[in-house]
Amino acid sequence: MEMMRLSFNQATAERASLPEVVEACARHGIPYVSLWRHKIAETGLDVAVRLVRDAGLTVSSVCRGGMFPAATAEERARRIEDNLRAVDEAAALGAEVLVLVCGAAPDKDIGAARAMVADGIAAVVPYAAERGVTLGIEPLHPAFAGERSCITTLREARRLAEHFPRGIVGVVADVYHIWWDPELYEELDAAAPRLVAYHVNDWLVPQTNVLLGRGMMGDGVIDLARIGAAVERAGYMGPIEVEIFNEAVWAMPLDELLPLVKRRFVEHG
Amino acid sequence: MEMMRLSFNQATAERASLPEVVEACARHGIPYVSLWRHKIAETGLDVAVRLVRDAGLTVSSVCRGGMFPAATAEERARRIEDNLRAVDEAAALGAEVLVLVCGAAPDKDIGAARAMVADGIAAVVPYAAERGVTLGIEPLHPAFAGERSCITTLREARRLAEHFPRGIVGVVADVYHIWWDPELYEELDAAAPRLVAYHVNDWLVPQTNVLLGRGMMGDGVIDLARIGAAVERAGYMGPIEVEIFNEAVWAMPLDELLPLVKRRFVEHG
Repeated sequence: MEMMRLSFNQATAERASLPEVVEACARHGIPYVSLWRHKIAETGLDVAVRLVRDAGLTVSSVCRGGMFPAATAEERARRIEDNLRAVDEAAALGAEVLVLVCGAAPDKDIGAARAMVADGIAAVVPYAAERGVTLGIEPLHPAFAGERSCITTLREARRLAEHFPRGIVGVVADVYHIWWDPELYEELDAAAPRLVAYHVNDWLVPQTNVLLGRGMMGDGVIDLARIGAAVERAGYMGPIEVEIFNEAVWAMPLDELLPLVKRRFVEHG
Repeated sequence: MEMMRLSFNQATAERASLPEVVEACARHGIPYVSLWRHKIAETGLDVAVRLVRDAGLTVSSVCRGGMFPAATAEERARRIEDNLRAVDEAAALGAEVLVLVCGAAPDKDIGAARAMVADGIAAVVPYAAERGVTLGIEPLHPAFAGERSCITTLREARRLAEHFPRGIVGVVADVYHIWWDPELYEELDAAAPRLVAYHVNDWLVPQTNVLLGRGMMGDGVIDLARIGAAVERAGYMGPIEVEIFNEAVWAMPLDELLPLVKRRFVEHG
């Protein structure tokens, strides 16, 4: 993939601060960055906005909103309120997309959790529309259904998004979460009008840690070329985020990590 | 669930030998047992057949056939041959079902692996029909798509089974593998004519090890009552296997484990 579409998701450098990541991306000629809220909070939103602008970077997305299901109405309201603040941050940073990791059931009722997600998104949509931020529903790998997201497939994410206006609610396709899907290519086609972000990384074999064992593009078994072509065919032409949660990757100095990410992105992204 | 439907899958007692499991199941009044091929091989098939018969147990299934995809035609032929031997073992033990864990791609081409699975099953079907053994396609959790099974959903398993005669090829529903599916209940209904086995256990939260961290029924987040009712509604009235891969469970003496399994099966199974 061409370098001009590369976005460095800062979760790939979890040990680095936001200023460090922004400075390194600019120096290594990476055009986009994706920022996480805990890192934005550490730095302060205003400082983050200035750093990104001064560095000439574009923020492809802010991670993450969502986490809507909770055991009580009070807690659900608090989560929705927190999502409004996430929308504010995305708007301030000029990020087109706020990525939603939707949240898991607080109990055994995954169906009820799914309804809470739909209700939560509905509550955030008017504010997101007003602020010009697109909510990107990211289906997570079913391995995270118990702890992070009851939304587990592209189809489910797309059907949920379709309850809301196009342009306000879309779908985020991350290869790690969707590569196994027997209906992947049909669903990428079906999601085409809603695709608002595309994330790359790889699925390592053997897989020793589903959460913190993601691989660098090319090191695993995901057919990135074929999935990337399908995403292109679906008409998605925006930035492509490299997002890798991996202790070994996190241990790399930024000046080794970023050249590696660029090389693998061009070769496999 | 009623005790008369309980089948103890011996993977739940991986540290015990086949004779130990058979003896303990009989003594604890468990009517069915599910046996694994590496344990049958340790004991010898003829001895296993005799032990099971003398103990008055019924073998609900033999685990496992499958593992069809491989890089070379020679290796794929060898795998098919091995499946014929698995059919022999199931037939000798009077097991109605040979569980198929279908196998993963030897490379990045999961689509090609799926075709190899279909071809492999087709090659085994005539022999299975002759020997009166049903091949049960078990969709595995997508977390295993890179290493154990390219067949990851109930729908995919059912559609694959439908290429073959009913009664010869069916579908195995294991709650651990399918509980997250947004179309679970529709798919259990759709699979009704093909359902040949039902496995229970639980999904622990937090999940620390996808392979060896399955939980005892009631210890996790799976809505066993609702899924069990759907399986019943689908018309499946056969044995229900308890299959738990878990180091802590494996460390329990059989005379503690089996009463616990019985209690949890009756309460949650």
